[in-house]
Amino acid sequence: MNATLFPQHLIARKRDGHALTSEEIEAFVRGATDGSWADYQLSAMLMAIFLRGMATAETVALTEAMMNSGLIADLSSVPWPKVDKHSTGGVGDKVSLHLAPMVAACGVAVPMVSGRGLGHTGGTLDKLESIPGFRVNLSLEEYARQMEAIGVALIGQTAEIAPADKKLYALRDVTATVECIPLICASILSKKMAEGIDALVLDVKFGRGAFMKDKSRARELAAAMVSIGRAMCKPTRAVLTAMDQPLGHAVGNALEMAESIACLRGQGPADLMELTFVLGEQMLLLAGVARTPAAARQQLAQTLANGSALAKFREIVTAQGGDARVLDDPTRLPSATLRAEIVSRNAGYVTDVNALEIAHAALRLGAGRARAEDAVDPAVGFSQLVKVGDGVMPGGVLAVVHANDHDKLAEARTMVERAITLGEEAVPKPKLIEEVLG
Amino acid sequence: MNATLFPQHLIARKRDGHALTSEEIEAFVRGATDGSWADYQLSAMLMAIFLRGMATAETVALTEAMMNSGLIADLSSVPWPKVDKHSTGGVGDKVSLHLAPMVAACGVAVPMVSGRGLGHTGGTLDKLESIPGFRVNLSLEEYARQMEAIGVALIGQTAEIAPADKKLYALRDVTATVECIPLICASILSKKMAEGIDALVLDVKFGRGAFMKDKSRARELAAAMVSIGRAMCKPTRAVLTAMDQPLGHAVGNALEMAESIACLRGQGPADLMELTFVLGEQMLLLAGVARTPAAARQQLAQTLANGSALAKFREIVTAQGGDARVLDDPTRLPSATLRAEIVSRNAGYVTDVNALEIAHAALRLGAGRARAEDAVDPAVGFSQLVKVGDGVMPGGVLAVVHANDHDKLAEARTMVERAITLGEEAVPKPKLIEEVLG
Repeated sequence: MNATLFPQHLIARKRDGHALTSEEIEAFVRGATDGSWADYQLSAMLMAIFLRGMATAETVALTEAMMNSGLIADLSSVPWPKVDKHSTGGVGDKVSLHLAPMVAACGVAVPMVSGRGLGHTGGTLDKLESIPGFRVNLSLEEYARQMEAIGVALIGQTAEIAPADKKLYALRDVTATVECIPLICASILSKKMAEGIDALVLDVKFGRGAFMKDKSRARELAAAMVSIGRAMCKPTRAVLTAMDQPLGHAVGNALEMAESIACLRGQGPADLMELTFVLGEQMLLLAGVARTPAAARQQLAQTLANGSALAKFREIVTAQGGDARVLDDPTRLPSATLRAEIVSRNAGYVTDVNALEIAHAALRLGAGRARAEDAVDPAVGFSQLVKVGDGVMPGGVLAVVHANDHDKLAEARTMVERAITLGEEAVPKPKLIEEVLG
Repeated sequence: MNATLFPQHLIARKRDGHALTSEEIEAFVRGATDGSWADYQLSAMLMAIFLRGMATAETVALTEAMMNSGLIADLSSVPWPKVDKHSTGGVGDKVSLHLAPMVAACGVAVPMVSGRGLGHTGGTLDKLESIPGFRVNLSLEEYARQMEAIGVALIGQTAEIAPADKKLYALRDVTATVECIPLICASILSKKMAEGIDALVLDVKFGRGAFMKDKSRARELAAAMVSIGRAMCKPTRAVLTAMDQPLGHAVGNALEMAESIACLRGQGPADLMELTFVLGEQMLLLAGVARTPAAARQQLAQTLANGSALAKFREIVTAQGGDARVLDDPTRLPSATLRAEIVSRNAGYVTDVNALEIAHAALRLGAGRARAEDAVDPAVGFSQLVKVGDGVMPGGVLAVVHANDHDKLAEARTMVERAITLGEEAVPKPKLIEEVLG
């Protein structure tokens, strides 16, 4: 090895605040991929990057090196423009489930590869797996074939995609180096760029239920990702959205799946549909199939009205081995043995539904995972959650708890009661969409 | 484990610039000692400490926790005040070899535990091992018995002393986190404090041949160690000394041993003896056996004049299994098969003897180790090295190379020739002792 690319030397350069060259960044990523850097050297470099930062050119080089650490899907035979959406994650965020078929029904291919990750509530893959038989672990080849056939696939990250990210993310998680914008950018974008996309729309959330609590930090992350995407010649836009209360009325894997099916039937909650349309508009605009947001929204709404989005979702479920009958009869989804309504004692207006506390309650029920190896319970969670701004009468339902265990039900009930605050004065619906960047 | 002491949480606190509590620092050190923190977590914390620094109270807590990670020698039955000297290391630095018996001959116990470490030239232990039979690997019990019997021991760091330092140092070496003042302080002082000392004198070097190149950084390190020592109720002084040219005339293990024996016979080089006296003065002052530097120097000089220092060194060598006949006949020390004089072509004055280049040449001969597992050749090195300020005549000796290999001899000769610079104008002897702190 060239001595100037020795781990110690490169760590020291970043430690001392120097910008690393592309060659140096490639050596680091190669070290993560082939094991030639020890874990303790990778983590020292990650902490040095965390504290010293990275210039845009460095982050681009890191993203490219991580992308090139594995295979890049070849979707050249897919005849539609290919645009994906990625969310930084929020409580009740089931947008991907119905957005992907809606956009695909508009003639835009959606190559969606999701990571599993940790989370108080399940991720997109867990929600999909609540459909009996649904397979998310397709090979890259099966994925490419499905993209070519139906223009959309919803799969899990394969070992072939960005292995360097898998290694680095696992280390970041246990070394307090997660919340670092260049590392977040490279992690998200290296995987997305390896999917074979032409363009990307990001949903960057801020607030109590988001990864980034702070709006200005979330905007910083959004702007950084837009820059990196552009530098890699993949038009990228980011929508900055609030995540203080859960999205929609349902939290929990099968319950969210059912809510997404309702969305595809044109019966989605207002906040969830608003976000779905805004993200879908940007996807259609980047794909070039619509010229204005209003035109894009009209096309998207049409896919709900004419049943083409639901039909597309049926194609997905069938292609990936799932039981498509759940689309007609959501009671075929896993359901919990215990159900309890939480009702209001007083009349009032909902002033707060704390997304983070709801997430903790869902985790307590078993809807998410505390450790990567944990299994999730697809049936548990909450439905009929009230929204901030709702008026409530005495005896009115604030939420329904779905549980498979009496103790957990009791605990989750207490937690949800604490998470929901009522006031005497009417409050407006909070702003959901903050800004579109890019 | 208390969740607030989880590795990720503590790493994040230091990463964000918070001062860690003693309890938090103890958790980190315990994690290093018992393996409950993974190496990648230790190295992330080390990098966070490197970049965020530590307040004095944190460094004291780190030093104490590292000291307490192993056994602390019980020298309570040793009837003399116990003072050690530690040097940050320099080229040709054999001071410990003759200083320890000189100070011990003045009635001050010298419990000297040295690390092996890496170095271009051998360390104190390697120099001692050039005496046939000399054992440096005493157990803590043997060490305590010898301290009680003769008041001085020169041993290697045992596995029982500060195991956390051993672990952390090995990681620092490969993660670019060595040059960090709080970590250096804690590494040095945790081991020294575990020796059972009452007080400590530090030789903190700066210059090309020193670990700290920069004088102001070396002063910062010296001041920090003095503060930490005091906070631990162990009076500590630091002598700031120049390390641009080698100390004395010899570099190489047996050659330095021979030079130290010459020092004990009152025939030491001026620069080496000056440093020896200044360090010894501070040791005697801290021990309370002398009231002024001048009185201390007189006592130390007396041990050379009356043979008591040489007699004390004979006791050490005998106690540790070495062949004491080398003291009377240094030709019994290992000697190299090849000797070559480097002579001057011109007349002139020595304006530079680059300590770092001399060290590299010694390493090339095999006098030091590039990797921890390397063996050193005790016989090789340089003798009769000229000093800056010396006048040289054509044909005058600049150095003598001692080697066991023709190719290495030729390479080392070229390196030494490059390291020594002559000028036409007389230059003064450079200042060796910069300052005494504490």
